[in-house]
Amino acid sequence: MSKSMSGRPTQSGSRRSGRQSEPPLIPVLAVVGVGLIGGSFAAALRQVGQVGQVLGVGRDAAALARACELRLIDRSCTLAEAARADVIMLATPVGAMPELLRELLPHLGADTVLTDGGSTKQDVVDAAREALGDEVARFVPGHPVAGSELSGPEAARPDLFLGRQVVLTPLAENPPELVQRVRQAWLACGAHVTEMSAEQHDDWLASVSHLPHLLAYAYIAHLAEAPDASERMRYAGSGFRDFSRIAAASPEMWRDILLANRTLIRRELDQVREQLLRFDRLLETEKAEELEALLAQAAELRRSWRL
Amino acid sequence: MSKSMSGRPTQSGSRRSGRQSEPPLIPVLAVVGVGLIGGSFAAALRQVGQVGQVLGVGRDAAALARACELRLIDRSCTLAEAARADVIMLATPVGAMPELLRELLPHLGADTVLTDGGSTKQDVVDAAREALGDEVARFVPGHPVAGSELSGPEAARPDLFLGRQVVLTPLAENPPELVQRVRQAWLACGAHVTEMSAEQHDDWLASVSHLPHLLAYAYIAHLAEAPDASERMRYAGSGFRDFSRIAAASPEMWRDILLANRTLIRRELDQVREQLLRFDRLLETEKAEELEALLAQAAELRRSWRL
Repeated sequence: MSKSMSGRPTQSGSRRSGRQSEPPLIPVLAVVGVGLIGGSFAAALRQVGQVGQVLGVGRDAAALARACELRLIDRSCTLAEAARADVIMLATPVGAMPELLRELLPHLGADTVLTDGGSTKQDVVDAAREALGDEVARFVPGHPVAGSELSGPEAARPDLFLGRQVVLTPLAENPPELVQRVRQAWLACGAHVTEMSAEQHDDWLASVSHLPHLLAYAYIAHLAEAPDASERMRYAGSGFRDFSRIAAASPEMWRDILLANRTLIRRELDQVREQLLRFDRLLETEKAEELEALLAQAAELRRSWRL
Repeated sequence: MSKSMSGRPTQSGSRRSGRQSEPPLIPVLAVVGVGLIGGSFAAALRQVGQVGQVLGVGRDAAALARACELRLIDRSCTLAEAARADVIMLATPVGAMPELLRELLPHLGADTVLTDGGSTKQDVVDAAREALGDEVARFVPGHPVAGSELSGPEAARPDLFLGRQVVLTPLAENPPELVQRVRQAWLACGAHVTEMSAEQHDDWLASVSHLPHLLAYAYIAHLAEAPDASERMRYAGSGFRDFSRIAAASPEMWRDILLANRTLIRRELDQVREQLLRFDRLLETEKAEELEALLAQAAELRRSWRL
């Protein structure tokens, strides 16, 4: 199947090099926060030859140096220099974004487009409106639904977004051509791109991403209270491994996500606590048939799903 | 490293064939319930040449026929014939075991050893004592801590137990040589074998296996209540995939496990519901530092673990 059918550029970096080449989609990309998401975005675009120069901004000098060694970025720079890039990708924990946007504003280049990779959108949109004022028109909010329990530049991979969903939550103020530009960059990373409102995004992601993370963290926090937790874990198998993998994700990133989307997450949490009470009652009263029906309904829904 | 150091036979099936061969550990094995666990046990032993003939018993004729085609078993047989095998592996859902043990008793061969692969042990031991009377001495209870969300003979694999823990919970009545025989069979499957009491097994497994399964099922049961569940799941990523994989496991098997070990599981469930309330309060009061500390503690424990 030709990738150009879905709007994805077909020319890879290596294929481009021998030809009269078109300019890349993004001549200068600045990545603020060169970790799993920011680093993978840069690596993916570089792999398909859709980025010229990649600048990196971060608070951790060692991580920036490592990102250079790994060729995720060409060099590090100041926030003021990053502000003049063609596209700025904010890929920090969402809690850091309001301050970063305020610092970028006075230095923004005339045609610079801003986007982000934050896992929550309503809070980022609110912060962007407050920090950028009228300039918010050039901020196209986004969320690549892809991740890993690993973090930092070492975890970045050019194929992280391949076949994954990227949700854009464009603002009424965004000129369509800017949204299109961000969309094309994600398509070039091999992602599927969808648009929806920030509210819908946060509602849906609360249930399919934020709540599972909270449950996995709470489960391990519970296990940690057993004095013999390590001994118990010796008898854990592949079910435990997969179920709890996301509890190893970045605490800083997840602190921000859980707080940013707390209203919707708490609603989900209330509902799942009700479900747990329902299971508890079925066990207490030994209702075998009802229990099996409930398990079967869940198993059927889960089996119907494919990533 | 020589596997014989750990008591595991070093001669593979293919290596044995050209030699003056020792008899296999188990001349005739009867597997009752030829699914993931029973089928994998037979396949693993056959692969290392430690089983002569494999008989299969099951209630589903099509599954038995498939198990024959897949060479997991040589042929199907009646429970009475299975009772005269050298070793009987009970690999059905634990709820079916009391009845099966009662039916096997009058037909047991003089030297037949019984073992099982059930995920709970106290209930199986109680059932075995009640069903077998004095003959319980030849029942060596066991639990291979290995599994999959898949079930049935198609899911069986000779390497399912490779490097995994198998817990034996021997009875005071078991002659040591019978325990040794079951242990050797599991070592031949490539497993690590540990012994502990049935009580300890059920306590530990409640926390590292049964509770995660219950949480995954309850989470998907919660999701199933959303009218737009399928639409939401389109935006689920690899975190969701891994976290909820075990909710696709056999509802019948997990009904039995959850009920059999309900007292310990309900205690775990109470504690995890308390943890969820703790997270809820931290979100309600926006305690960012405390929340991050709790997430970091969980992430650290989870990162310290390897299967």
